[in-house]
Amino acid sequence: MTARRASESTVRRLCGYLRRLREPPAAGRAYVSSSELGAACGVTAAQVRKDLSLFGSFGRRGSGYPVEELRAGLEAILGLDRGWRVAVVGAGKIGGALLGYDDLERRGFHLVAAFDADPAKIGTVRHGVRVHGMADLETVLASADVELVILAVPPPAAAAVASRLAACGIRGILNFAPVRLDPGPGPDIRNVDVALELEGLTYAVAARSRRDGGRG
Amino acid sequence: MTARRASESTVRRLCGYLRRLREPPAAGRAYVSSSELGAACGVTAAQVRKDLSLFGSFGRRGSGYPVEELRAGLEAILGLDRGWRVAVVGAGKIGGALLGYDDLERRGFHLVAAFDADPAKIGTVRHGVRVHGMADLETVLASADVELVILAVPPPAAAAVASRLAACGIRGILNFAPVRLDPGPGPDIRNVDVALELEGLTYAVAARSRRDGGRG
Repeated sequence: MTARRASESTVRRLCGYLRRLREPPAAGRAYVSSSELGAACGVTAAQVRKDLSLFGSFGRRGSGYPVEELRAGLEAILGLDRGWRVAVVGAGKIGGALLGYDDLERRGFHLVAAFDADPAKIGTVRHGVRVHGMADLETVLASADVELVILAVPPPAAAAVASRLAACGIRGILNFAPVRLDPGPGPDIRNVDVALELEGLTYAVAARSRRDGGRG
Repeated sequence: MTARRASESTVRRLCGYLRRLREPPAAGRAYVSSSELGAACGVTAAQVRKDLSLFGSFGRRGSGYPVEELRAGLEAILGLDRGWRVAVVGAGKIGGALLGYDDLERRGFHLVAAFDADPAKIGTVRHGVRVHGMADLETVLASADVELVILAVPPPAAAAVASRLAACGIRGILNFAPVRLDPGPGPDIRNVDVALELEGLTYAVAARSRRDGGRG
């Protein structure tokens, strides 16, 4: 199967389809229709067919998509046909909370190490994960075979830490610091910015107010 | 200024442009070029011009965009020409961490109340914000004039709480529970799903591995 490069929003929808295929009622059945998948994910059947057509021809006219083949295909495309070893760098408020976030393990992301600059935290174990000092970053990441990092350090530290992660071969960084990172070639980077998400929400609320002529 | 409905990724970019316009070196200057704005946000000058053209004609050929006018226009479009009163519902690990997230206040989101079902938390004050019981949800949201809610309750509780929020006129919900919410007409909803963000990252890493013929 050849996969063309999909947009970020396409990838989000593909992840949504996959989640539906892994759960009842789709899981265990032979076929699922594009309208059923779409309804479960809040998109149209046409959107589902368009998204899946990017990756070759999964579906059969009349009978829909074979559930097992589509699930396996999506898992391979999304890199979710395997587990991933993840470290949390920065075990403060957000990082510490993510260490206890059960949903990650359940979805194939194994938290295997944490790091912090605070001597009071170094050597402690939080939700079963040991917190190491920043001086040991490269050694521990290598020995624990970490591929992905959740970066939750204070904004002024983020760029320097990202450079160290890039230099030691980390393949992906999920960045919670509200700064734009550009550590050069190497890791793929995604940003989670809670204030930015709220800003997306205020846009929608303000746009609705303009349409409705209401307050806002 | 009339604003057509912009896609989610356009809105993200508009928020990025606005952030640049509010900070030096653009802030305080008279004009900024599309290439300068684009470079700061990691997109092309053509993308900047296309995004801003959605909202009417801000720019002047040769001199670029007037900084103050563009900033004010983007703030109005994005609903960021005013502050927003926000409550956190669910003061557990993620919700509790967000209560201490200074970046929200700095960007115009005032955390004015928190709610939790745990009797041990009710009545406590976390990072200056009082935690109320779920029984007082509607009363406190109304008296505190809350418009936006950050929802960080356990997944099984999310749908019922979202319905209560919709019923009492909350205008936007930022949902951290890894479940799809559909409380009917009323609030706009955005989802932040950390595992889904990691899945977006594994897609990028896996796609790169396929291109490079490397491991993955």
